[in-house]
Amino acid sequence: MKPGAKANPQVETVRVELGTRSYPIVIGAGVLDDVGAHVRGTCGPGKVAVVSNPTVSNLYMSRVTESLRRAGCEAVTVEIPDGEEHKTLTSLGSIYDRVLAAGFERRSPLIALGGGVVGDVTGFAAATMLRGVPFVQVPTTLLAQVDSSVGGKTGINHPTGKNLIGAFYQPQLVLVDLDTLKSLPQRQFLSGLAEVVKYGAILDAALFGLLEQRMDAVLALDADLLRQVVRRCCELKAMVVQRDERESDYRAILNFGHTLGHAVESLTDYKRYSHGEAIAIGMAFAATLSVARGYCDPEAMRRIVGLLKRVGLPVELPAELLGERLARAVAGDKKAAGGKVKFVCLTEIGQTRFEELTSEEIADVAARWCAGRL
Amino acid sequence: MKPGAKANPQVETVRVELGTRSYPIVIGAGVLDDVGAHVRGTCGPGKVAVVSNPTVSNLYMSRVTESLRRAGCEAVTVEIPDGEEHKTLTSLGSIYDRVLAAGFERRSPLIALGGGVVGDVTGFAAATMLRGVPFVQVPTTLLAQVDSSVGGKTGINHPTGKNLIGAFYQPQLVLVDLDTLKSLPQRQFLSGLAEVVKYGAILDAALFGLLEQRMDAVLALDADLLRQVVRRCCELKAMVVQRDERESDYRAILNFGHTLGHAVESLTDYKRYSHGEAIAIGMAFAATLSVARGYCDPEAMRRIVGLLKRVGLPVELPAELLGERLARAVAGDKKAAGGKVKFVCLTEIGQTRFEELTSEEIADVAARWCAGRL
Repeated sequence: MKPGAKANPQVETVRVELGTRSYPIVIGAGVLDDVGAHVRGTCGPGKVAVVSNPTVSNLYMSRVTESLRRAGCEAVTVEIPDGEEHKTLTSLGSIYDRVLAAGFERRSPLIALGGGVVGDVTGFAAATMLRGVPFVQVPTTLLAQVDSSVGGKTGINHPTGKNLIGAFYQPQLVLVDLDTLKSLPQRQFLSGLAEVVKYGAILDAALFGLLEQRMDAVLALDADLLRQVVRRCCELKAMVVQRDERESDYRAILNFGHTLGHAVESLTDYKRYSHGEAIAIGMAFAATLSVARGYCDPEAMRRIVGLLKRVGLPVELPAELLGERLARAVAGDKKAAGGKVKFVCLTEIGQTRFEELTSEEIADVAARWCAGRL
Repeated sequence: MKPGAKANPQVETVRVELGTRSYPIVIGAGVLDDVGAHVRGTCGPGKVAVVSNPTVSNLYMSRVTESLRRAGCEAVTVEIPDGEEHKTLTSLGSIYDRVLAAGFERRSPLIALGGGVVGDVTGFAAATMLRGVPFVQVPTTLLAQVDSSVGGKTGINHPTGKNLIGAFYQPQLVLVDLDTLKSLPQRQFLSGLAEVVKYGAILDAALFGLLEQRMDAVLALDADLLRQVVRRCCELKAMVVQRDERESDYRAILNFGHTLGHAVESLTDYKRYSHGEAIAIGMAFAATLSVARGYCDPEAMRRIVGLLKRVGLPVELPAELLGERLARAVAGDKKAAGGKVKFVCLTEIGQTRFEELTSEEIADVAARWCAGRL
């Protein structure tokens, strides 16, 4: 798109309504070229910092900084290394160093251009620099577009566990350019679809049905369908966050599949599985546990496992992860309270219930599942 | 005081009313022995972590952990090095490491036992661990008791400036043991009195008058007077924080003396002056600037300078700090906005007004002041 040209008209906006912390999610193709106009409109002109990783930066940074320049914003760029293992205090420190040395003020926004790691670390930097500067999310992975860029969870990992350090801090603006999905490696795209399937499974039987009917078109990146699906996921996420911004209770519904998923990631050192792959296993398990406890019809479980398989995601727990280590990893999840884990069970497609389970109970069901006895 | 003995009856409570984030400040002699009962009452039994520095830890840690043990709380202790130069990402990381390795959960409180550095770093750790755990302040310096432990400012320093990284995060409880002031080095006690003088100067002519009348008794640690003064300062701080928790506007009144004070600290590498000494210079300057601009009667300025001198605090800016460096240091203060600094001027004892000044204007007045031309 030429500078100054009109943006793609097929742009949709979802609002996250959180009082003074409300913000729009702008979804469409070609939105990257309008980052400057949007940021200027929300935060005014002046200094901005764009944080990215080398891969995304090579692909998109120049378009974003050019768009910011046209809008009268002076961009400082920061790169943090790629990958979950760099979601650390060290990466955070490098953002502080670069941005504070550039003479930032309280009204200068930080823009995250990338996937979940860039978004989480940048959001935490924005939450904590000068006790809070404006934050803009420009998610370039499907996972970030439908999940991590919306809702204000920011943070970094700690050697003892994932996301153990962080803050709730809402962005002022989320800008989703669906075209970036074309450059996304297939494995990352499929990983993002795990969260998409999750939204259908826990909150929206119609979305789940649409995915079952049209998964081939989703996998072929059908533009209209993708926009529809991403928008729906953002609406669902917004609805959950509006009801329970700080995860007092209801928001934990989004952890469907994550209790076991996080344990699987942790036990495999975040190397063997992507986040989406790990939670695909976790969702298959959660559905199975729900059937085993009599909360849910086996057919719902079969539909979830079937859809995940069709995406190409793993749905089985490797036997070598079983046992006491698994129980400990489940208990180590930061959502544990008083030794019990708040586990999200399925009751039917689109419906859930919470159950308080001990990590040992969960590990026991996992062992029976692995042994083919469920 | 023996275990189980009744607490000193002369304990007073000031409430900070912030809706769901309201909390009590308990002020009295011997409160350290009741830390356990208070923490248990507010946070329940279970794991707690007490963060301190070696000096304070040697004096008081065993009393605090013993009190916690009696109340059924299991205490992990953490020490961070003493001094402003250790209010860093490194100290923060050491708290994360120790506390997360101890298997903390979201409801496990972090207790800060010490002065402003311990309180600020521990509060920031509490704000960011597991996206927020309960936080209890047990301030043992006068500065922390009347100022930094109340109001929710937490954070660490960055090489480019003080408190540039942090969060607003209210404690659930502040426990002030006035007896700890007996072990406080004289220079630190006087430094805290700078903030006490500040409350009188900007908000309470009666408090200011009381300090003028009874400074000798304050300096002699008169117990009843100290309790009265600390309580009044906490009430004033609570009033300011209740009106503007996140420093949108009004709370900046507390920065009286801090614009120049921070610059003085920064230009002398935080070594030559304590915080209180630097802001004593800053208050003398702010009063002088207020007179020079015609906002304030010279008599009010003379009373402030006179009281600070009687405390034994510095009231003159060293000439070698003048010039462009000073202007830059003033501009580097994080409260700068659009190149202008929101400067707190005095109109009379107990009354202020804000003025937007450029850092150059401020440095110019400082040069004239230094040259004896004001």
